[in-house]
Amino acid sequence: MDNTGYTPEEPIAAIATALVPAALGIIRVSGKSCRKLLSSIFSRPKALLAALPNSIVYGWIVDPSNGEKVDEVLVSVFCAPKSFTGEDMAEISCHGGVSVVTAIYALLLKHGFRPAERGEFTFRAYINGKTDLTRAEAVREIIDSKTAGSRSRAAGRLAGNLYDVIDSIKKSIVDTIADIEVEIEYPEDEETIADTFDPSKLKEAERRLSQLADSWTSEKIYQDGARVVLCGRTNAGKSSLFNSLLKEERAIVSNIEGTTRDFIESWVDFDGIPARLFDTAGLRDTEDVIEQRGVERTKDLSREADLILYMVDMSAGITDDDREFIKANSSKIPLILVLNKSDKLGGTDFSLETELESAVSSVVKISAKLGSQLDSLSSVVKSLLLKGAKTEREQAGLGSERQKNAVEQALLCVRHALSLSADYALDAVVQDLEDSLDFLGAVTGDVTPDDILGSIFSRFCVGK
Amino acid sequence: MDNTGYTPEEPIAAIATALVPAALGIIRVSGKSCRKLLSSIFSRPKALLAALPNSIVYGWIVDPSNGEKVDEVLVSVFCAPKSFTGEDMAEISCHGGVSVVTAIYALLLKHGFRPAERGEFTFRAYINGKTDLTRAEAVREIIDSKTAGSRSRAAGRLAGNLYDVIDSIKKSIVDTIADIEVEIEYPEDEETIADTFDPSKLKEAERRLSQLADSWTSEKIYQDGARVVLCGRTNAGKSSLFNSLLKEERAIVSNIEGTTRDFIESWVDFDGIPARLFDTAGLRDTEDVIEQRGVERTKDLSREADLILYMVDMSAGITDDDREFIKANSSKIPLILVLNKSDKLGGTDFSLETELESAVSSVVKISAKLGSQLDSLSSVVKSLLLKGAKTEREQAGLGSERQKNAVEQALLCVRHALSLSADYALDAVVQDLEDSLDFLGAVTGDVTPDDILGSIFSRFCVGK
Repeated sequence: MDNTGYTPEEPIAAIATALVPAALGIIRVSGKSCRKLLSSIFSRPKALLAALPNSIVYGWIVDPSNGEKVDEVLVSVFCAPKSFTGEDMAEISCHGGVSVVTAIYALLLKHGFRPAERGEFTFRAYINGKTDLTRAEAVREIIDSKTAGSRSRAAGRLAGNLYDVIDSIKKSIVDTIADIEVEIEYPEDEETIADTFDPSKLKEAERRLSQLADSWTSEKIYQDGARVVLCGRTNAGKSSLFNSLLKEERAIVSNIEGTTRDFIESWVDFDGIPARLFDTAGLRDTEDVIEQRGVERTKDLSREADLILYMVDMSAGITDDDREFIKANSSKIPLILVLNKSDKLGGTDFSLETELESAVSSVVKISAKLGSQLDSLSSVVKSLLLKGAKTEREQAGLGSERQKNAVEQALLCVRHALSLSADYALDAVVQDLEDSLDFLGAVTGDVTPDDILGSIFSRFCVGK
Repeated sequence: MDNTGYTPEEPIAAIATALVPAALGIIRVSGKSCRKLLSSIFSRPKALLAALPNSIVYGWIVDPSNGEKVDEVLVSVFCAPKSFTGEDMAEISCHGGVSVVTAIYALLLKHGFRPAERGEFTFRAYINGKTDLTRAEAVREIIDSKTAGSRSRAAGRLAGNLYDVIDSIKKSIVDTIADIEVEIEYPEDEETIADTFDPSKLKEAERRLSQLADSWTSEKIYQDGARVVLCGRTNAGKSSLFNSLLKEERAIVSNIEGTTRDFIESWVDFDGIPARLFDTAGLRDTEDVIEQRGVERTKDLSREADLILYMVDMSAGITDDDREFIKANSSKIPLILVLNKSDKLGGTDFSLETELESAVSSVVKISAKLGSQLDSLSSVVKSLLLKGAKTEREQAGLGSERQKNAVEQALLCVRHALSLSADYALDAVVQDLEDSLDFLGAVTGDVTPDDILGSIFSRFCVGK
């Protein structure tokens, strides 16, 4: 959000649930006197004003202009600083009708609240020290997460695993700076010099920063999802596979159909990796003008894909059309050759021409109809998309491009410091390390020179 | 919901917000030991178990199978009987991501909860005496309400205005029965007979029941909405009017477009009355086959409409095509002749042929482009759709077809009782009135023969 016009504590209101009919709807308010303002449209103002923190008050939202009862609600009361934003807050739980929710929201805007900007509640939480930037960014992430895999990565950051990693790296750097400062300030103390400066902490910091920076490749796929295009000749079984993969899908399915219906698209979960899977009506043998346009569209989609699933009906065998497509498309983009109808062949082995075998990234045999070997296919898709990157659940990764850029800058500074330290250009090393701390401080949202001072003086003995 | 398999207190869970990404999502649980079950997947089980009623507990939902933190949540705790269902309840407020909400719900189902059936929370509230049927039905209504008008009608019933009216009518009937019972049981007490029987209460009950039964006509329109079809020749300004009316619209707009795009449809708010407004591509002068199909479709839509808005460009005048359509369609369905581009004519008066004037239900002059006189149009649409029925905000009306059928049955019983009372067939009158009470008891969901006993004995003196 744009924070240039930020006025702390100004009472804000936002509809926090989707504007779609549902059992419940939630409207949040935060800021100075928000409970008092809310009480002006509440049937039990005294009960609301007297409520304890973290308690729930029953009543009606009432339009004071005409006394009309708008809805029967529960109001959750939170008091500064123990609230999500760190300010006084309330959440109105009403019936989840679009008309009800918007009516209550409109009443709030009439009675002292202004509409909250995007992310303003979380921004206030950050400003008020209730969260750091990595956790704040994880809030957005977790809401947008499309698979259990994405959610789990985001939940890790929300729980602070990235913050902890960054914090621990910062600590190594701060320690190193402290070591060096002691050398610079007290050069006469020969003993100290010999003992304290140790590049190993910096090398460890470098290794961990580099690992973090690399993590963005896979984290980005977990967040944004990959584009996977399903191609093949007519009757290869593409639609069966598409439907089988959708069955596995637990998130929301949305089909986008053009008027020429040249492809169908849906989010699919490949072993935790979200992907937009395009079922192309593609490579049909056709003279129909509209269908020919479909073939062109398939080729366009393939060029923009992160991964191509090329299906061949094993019982029909591989044709020159198949070979041509695979050779034309497998050089730049990972392509999995999906051999379908494996059930029909029984135990018969299917030997692939060496040239094709080397052109494709992987070969997977499935039965789209029986839904067999789909797990294997998902695993192969996942590992190709993640390019072998480690994505252990426990391991912290970066949550945004912003974080990645800052971590890369910090990494450059640390590397530069390491090269300088070989020459004992200690002042310059300290400058680099302080720069790296600034970049890491930008990741978590706190730039903390006090850390350094604290660390230095803690090494002195008492009384010196 | 189907209550044949109802097992009281069985722990149930339901996602209470829409499965669409949003800031917050709510999952509700209700039933025996629901807090204990929930604590098995909560990071702070002791805090949750120790929480006071109507308080909020902070923590994480954790998958006990692998220790994974699923989401950071707030749990609202409610204790029987002071909860919506009257049972022990909890509401989990989590981040509103589809993946998060479904992951928490899946965990609940793994740990002792079963999916709640449609309306089961409200059904339990009713079974446990937390609400009567008129209020319970209003819950569904308020969620589905499409305009402020519909919401306001439903909120009135939720606040109990219908219940109060029915209760007061029942009281009149119960009083009458009590009067009669005294006459039947103590016929020797001549004094009592002469004083107590009074048909005026029954006549008042009849009047009020009849008013209630009539209210359904307009209430049904508030709930389900009306079908309003916008017709006219090309360039009459239909699309401008459609768009101007949408601008006024605060609810969700959904356009349904066929591949032949023969009409566009949206919910529109006519002074509180929800209506599906169809902007027909209709009466174009065209030789295009697809467009000709559109003209046919417009005629079909007009036949199914509750109201037709027929637009004419005043600057172009009324043509024979216009006259033909109006005459063909205005006999069965109310038709408003909308004279557009009133701005272009300045003060010039526009006189309408008497024949047309008498064929249409109303004539309204507007400027679709300037958006002027749209309020007048809305008022006329509203009054034609409600057919002059009174719909004062304060006045209670029926909320469902079920209620209407029961009220009509009760009305028939009361009328029959009134006709019998003229002949002093008192036993039969009592039978009719008891039947009417059963029907009214069905409206509110409580059949209360004890009322009658209570009322009778309260008339006796102490000790008799």
